[in-house]
Amino acid sequence: METISENASFGGVQGVYKHKSASCACDMTFAVYLPPQAKKGPVPCLWYLSGLTCTHENAMTKAGLQEHAARRGIAVVFPDTSPRGDDVADDEAYDLGKGAGFYVNATQDPWAPNFKMYDYIKTELRDLVQSEFPVLEGRHGVTGHSMGGHGAITLALGNPGLFASLSAFAPIANPTASDWGRKQLTAYLGTDESKWKTHDSTLLVGSHGWEGGILVDQGASDQFLDLLKPEALANALAESRTASVFRMQPGYDHSYFFVASFGRDHVDWHADRLTA
Amino acid sequence: METISENASFGGVQGVYKHKSASCACDMTFAVYLPPQAKKGPVPCLWYLSGLTCTHENAMTKAGLQEHAARRGIAVVFPDTSPRGDDVADDEAYDLGKGAGFYVNATQDPWAPNFKMYDYIKTELRDLVQSEFPVLEGRHGVTGHSMGGHGAITLALGNPGLFASLSAFAPIANPTASDWGRKQLTAYLGTDESKWKTHDSTLLVGSHGWEGGILVDQGASDQFLDLLKPEALANALAESRTASVFRMQPGYDHSYFFVASFGRDHVDWHADRLTA
Repeated sequence: METISENASFGGVQGVYKHKSASCACDMTFAVYLPPQAKKGPVPCLWYLSGLTCTHENAMTKAGLQEHAARRGIAVVFPDTSPRGDDVADDEAYDLGKGAGFYVNATQDPWAPNFKMYDYIKTELRDLVQSEFPVLEGRHGVTGHSMGGHGAITLALGNPGLFASLSAFAPIANPTASDWGRKQLTAYLGTDESKWKTHDSTLLVGSHGWEGGILVDQGASDQFLDLLKPEALANALAESRTASVFRMQPGYDHSYFFVASFGRDHVDWHADRLTA
Repeated sequence: METISENASFGGVQGVYKHKSASCACDMTFAVYLPPQAKKGPVPCLWYLSGLTCTHENAMTKAGLQEHAARRGIAVVFPDTSPRGDDVADDEAYDLGKGAGFYVNATQDPWAPNFKMYDYIKTELRDLVQSEFPVLEGRHGVTGHSMGGHGAITLALGNPGLFASLSAFAPIANPTASDWGRKQLTAYLGTDESKWKTHDSTLLVGSHGWEGGILVDQGASDQFLDLLKPEALANALAESRTASVFRMQPGYDHSYFFVASFGRDHVDWHADRLTA
């Protein structure tokens, strides 16, 4: 692991790091915020999964989570959203290939050699963060925005014990029924739709329990509502009686201004559960 | 109007009153909590509509709203749930007739002469409370539990301007598709289902806007989930992009222990909007 940069932030440290990823077969960059409390001992750890076109950097610079994380004493990890590099396959569209890993393990060419973001987050980066940073094992939470909200919910529900707290901002909620999903799941996983089910939050919520509660914020003026399909997730949460808070936030769009506006609530949501 | 009782409560007054109702063609009893702030001038006013089998008394004694109302300086009105008296039609079932007015204006016999709870809340009791108590015109909010949550949402959405804030506890959310609804709407309004639409929260949310936001709490262990149909309302709120907070609360049932547990949040929700 190589340190790219470290900056003081709210009494803690915002760092950016690079490592050779075995899962993705390329160099991967990620960011970690350590709150001031981490100087005294290990702290809980919140993972923030980003959306389409993002790198580790967008949320790190625009979501404003550091202040809240410092107040509550939790670390925040900001992974990249896909493999990177000249040797990695890509597509001209913004929503496939680089910047659009969709948090799956691709089985189809040309994506299969590198696009293993599911395993990367679940195992490889998790192990690296656990070994290299002062974070408490078993005290990891996950959130994310848009494609990252999809990743957060599917990774958490699909891997009991991996995360102890869960929330999402404007997640791609029902990708098996959306143009943000069907295209990518076909490309990465193939046309057999039975293999898509574990990558759809709405379907997982209906079939998997999640006792710790799920917080979801969705902007009512989000320009991508038709692609996100929040109503499918809201329906599934209620129908499956899943502990949850689903908030339709009037006037908010899909931007980081939306994420930042409710960042405090999400950090508090996780901190309440990870520090209990 | 006749005073039945007045008790000091959290520095204010919990009163019970009786009046001759023209809408319901019988004597009606209701309760009003006035917070300490009402001694100095008119205050905002929250209406709490109760559920099946309740009178004005259940929430007044078991919901614990007075402490929160006193802290925030808002009055609370607790109406009865149906017309009363020996001359009023009834049914052997707990969910039809007395204690089960469903907040509609009955058009069918034997209910039509008395069962006008919609008009009673909307106009008659509203005017009486406005004239007899120190409450601010235009600063009324409404909440309710179960059948009363249904009443709160349908009255608020169906009468723009009547209420400035709205929430519900475990509302009967989709009565046109539930045994808690189809039976009563048939009895009170007749078999023409087109006349039921304005008495179904899920249908109203889909067709009527509500800019102030709606807070809904639902217990995930509610014994009546199949009758309440929270998933229909959750879906409609999300699909219609209505400003809202829908919370599925793990472990809570349909009782007043549930209502009391979240009473603080609901009073704060209304006070934030009514005192802004």
